[in-house]
Amino acid sequence: MDEPDRERVIDHAGAEVLTPEECLALLATTPVGRIAFVHDGDAVILPINIGLSNRSIVFSTQPGSKLDAAVMIRQVSVEIDGWNSASHDGWSVLVKGAAYLVTEADEIDKLNRLSVRSWVRPDAPRSWVRVLPNEITGRRLPTPTEQT
Amino acid sequence: MDEPDRERVIDHAGAEVLTPEECLALLATTPVGRIAFVHDGDAVILPINIGLSNRSIVFSTQPGSKLDAAVMIRQVSVEIDGWNSASHDGWSVLVKGAAYLVTEADEIDKLNRLSVRSWVRPDAPRSWVRVLPNEITGRRLPTPTEQT
Repeated sequence: MDEPDRERVIDHAGAEVLTPEECLALLATTPVGRIAFVHDGDAVILPINIGLSNRSIVFSTQPGSKLDAAVMIRQVSVEIDGWNSASHDGWSVLVKGAAYLVTEADEIDKLNRLSVRSWVRPDAPRSWVRVLPNEITGRRLPTPTEQT
Repeated sequence: MDEPDRERVIDHAGAEVLTPEECLALLATTPVGRIAFVHDGDAVILPINIGLSNRSIVFSTQPGSKLDAAVMIRQVSVEIDGWNSASHDGWSVLVKGAAYLVTEADEIDKLNRLSVRSWVRPDAPRSWVRVLPNEITGRRLPTPTEQT
């Protein structure tokens, strides 16, 4: 990120607060995330292959899969992170939003040209889901001043 | 895992089904996971530093943190995974269970001796939470027969 003069914001827990643009940059370069949604009253969490398209997250589902339920339920959270267990540094980004099945042929064509592939049966017929974010937040550890 | 003769089980999506023992072995060696729980009707997902103690997951919370809510809500899911974006291989383990605040001094002493440290303010006073699993499942991609 090219923002040398930006003042870094630290949250109450001591982690650096990432800007939405920093979060989007991480989302654009991280192929695996996890989706969480409420199903039968409990929180379900599943790993997914994700892409970024027009500042929203896209992923594909197989008809009849558990993931299909996410679209029915609509309100979902998507998380990505990266960490290093030796240096105890890491970051995470959380997107809360509404999941929609993509139905327009033009949009499906465009998404099919993205390099977003499910690692589970990549050749199986799949539908595209778009998560329109209403909140994007991110944190990074350690804070810049703590780095040695 | 030393089970050369075990027949590998493949799920409907084509992923290898991990045994509970394989899942526990991965949980014992993976220091970062994500916890999901229902809060105000939505699924919340947060990265956490985890440990394994007596076949249950342990993690620590700071008083007043978002994570504290997980204990109040009790039913949580914890996910860990590992993946390689070049080879498109990966695995994930999902634990569903009930979260309890650890209150017994003996148990707290024991947990304090584990090498489980929060990367967020590791020296701040913290409470321990134990997640007693009622379901442990895991998947691995690609399946052994697909590996080249």
